[in-house]
Amino acid sequence: MKKTVILLSGGLDSATCLALAREEGFSPYALSFRYGQRHEFELDSAKAVASSLGVSGHVITNIDLRAFGGSALTDDIDVPKDSDEFSITEDIPITYVPARNTIFLSFSLAYAEVIGANDIYIGVNALDYSGYPDCRPEYINSFQNMANLATRAGVEGDGSIIIHTPLINMTKAEIIRKGTQLGVDYSLTHSCYDPNVDGTSCGHCDACLLRLKGFKEVGLTDPLTYSD
Amino acid sequence: MKKTVILLSGGLDSATCLALAREEGFSPYALSFRYGQRHEFELDSAKAVASSLGVSGHVITNIDLRAFGGSALTDDIDVPKDSDEFSITEDIPITYVPARNTIFLSFSLAYAEVIGANDIYIGVNALDYSGYPDCRPEYINSFQNMANLATRAGVEGDGSIIIHTPLINMTKAEIIRKGTQLGVDYSLTHSCYDPNVDGTSCGHCDACLLRLKGFKEVGLTDPLTYSD
Repeated sequence: MKKTVILLSGGLDSATCLALAREEGFSPYALSFRYGQRHEFELDSAKAVASSLGVSGHVITNIDLRAFGGSALTDDIDVPKDSDEFSITEDIPITYVPARNTIFLSFSLAYAEVIGANDIYIGVNALDYSGYPDCRPEYINSFQNMANLATRAGVEGDGSIIIHTPLINMTKAEIIRKGTQLGVDYSLTHSCYDPNVDGTSCGHCDACLLRLKGFKEVGLTDPLTYSD
Repeated sequence: MKKTVILLSGGLDSATCLALAREEGFSPYALSFRYGQRHEFELDSAKAVASSLGVSGHVITNIDLRAFGGSALTDDIDVPKDSDEFSITEDIPITYVPARNTIFLSFSLAYAEVIGANDIYIGVNALDYSGYPDCRPEYINSFQNMANLATRAGVEGDGSIIIHTPLINMTKAEIIRKGTQLGVDYSLTHSCYDPNVDGTSCGHCDACLLRLKGFKEVGLTDPLTYSD
């Protein structure tokens, strides 16, 4: 089986992405980050998802994005609540963490090189998060081009790095439908940007709103507990 | 003054690069990493160099490249000593850290975005380290293309990211000559891959050999202390 690195946040998208990588015949090596996010529930979810779906390895590595600041997800900035749909899809949100996907993909490239993988899965989505510059297909293509010059694989010509983004053009409803078919247990996942102290979800941040809308469209009940 | 991020390892090259960025009129914000290197002398050097040449900010951030392994600089693998010139310049050395410059540049991109800089200086060199895939001009160009799609600057069109590599085609001797003209105090810098416990340099690893050869070609004495 070919090895692949999969970026696993513990969210709905990355869990589905892991299931897809397995379905496509890869032996997945998960990579998660303790990156100064305001809560660690998502790392518990990443571990639970990895264990539930099965991975060949799982590295959780520490980085400090708080050193730079600039985002509601790492700083003491209020997470927006009950945004209208326009603000979710058009602007760069305050929840955008500067260069986060570039940093995450760079680490996945290091992991891939060390385990001898040429494939990387990332659950980015260009529809629901069109405001995040580093979720767009042209960005991913450009990262892939760079990656093929950055590493031994690029220099020695013994393989070319492929960044797989199976979710990039799917709606949240399509992602949930596909993941449900593949047996993803969404009760293990975590999406909320601003969870309560007991780990339940706020139900009002952009991530909760998108998730709830997706489940509603599919006609399923989100198994997570919301605070109201 | 325009802000720039400068990757500052505390080595001879990055110190010279900082001096060049200042000469070119930038207000420099230095970025260094505690990345699981086998010794921390280079961080002391980074602080001393930053203080000596003057910076507008200096962030030292923790990342763990040891989580992945695969390099003599982060793992318990012997650093090669007294290599002949062929092995220094032709192969990918065991001292290559997988995807290191990609990771470092990614963090510099985050830092640049937060402080509102569009410029990044990195002291890579394609001559002395031609075996490192991520020191080549085509790699740097590709990273720059990616960076311009990855961030607010890329999306909003309010500036384009430039990765400056003033040393990329200079020999070590040319770097030392230029740095000396600009007042770089090379006694504060640190190059050795495998320093002694007292911080003195081994004199036999590739980094020491290249450095000593450079000083010799310029007709200067390296101010560092070597173990023999």
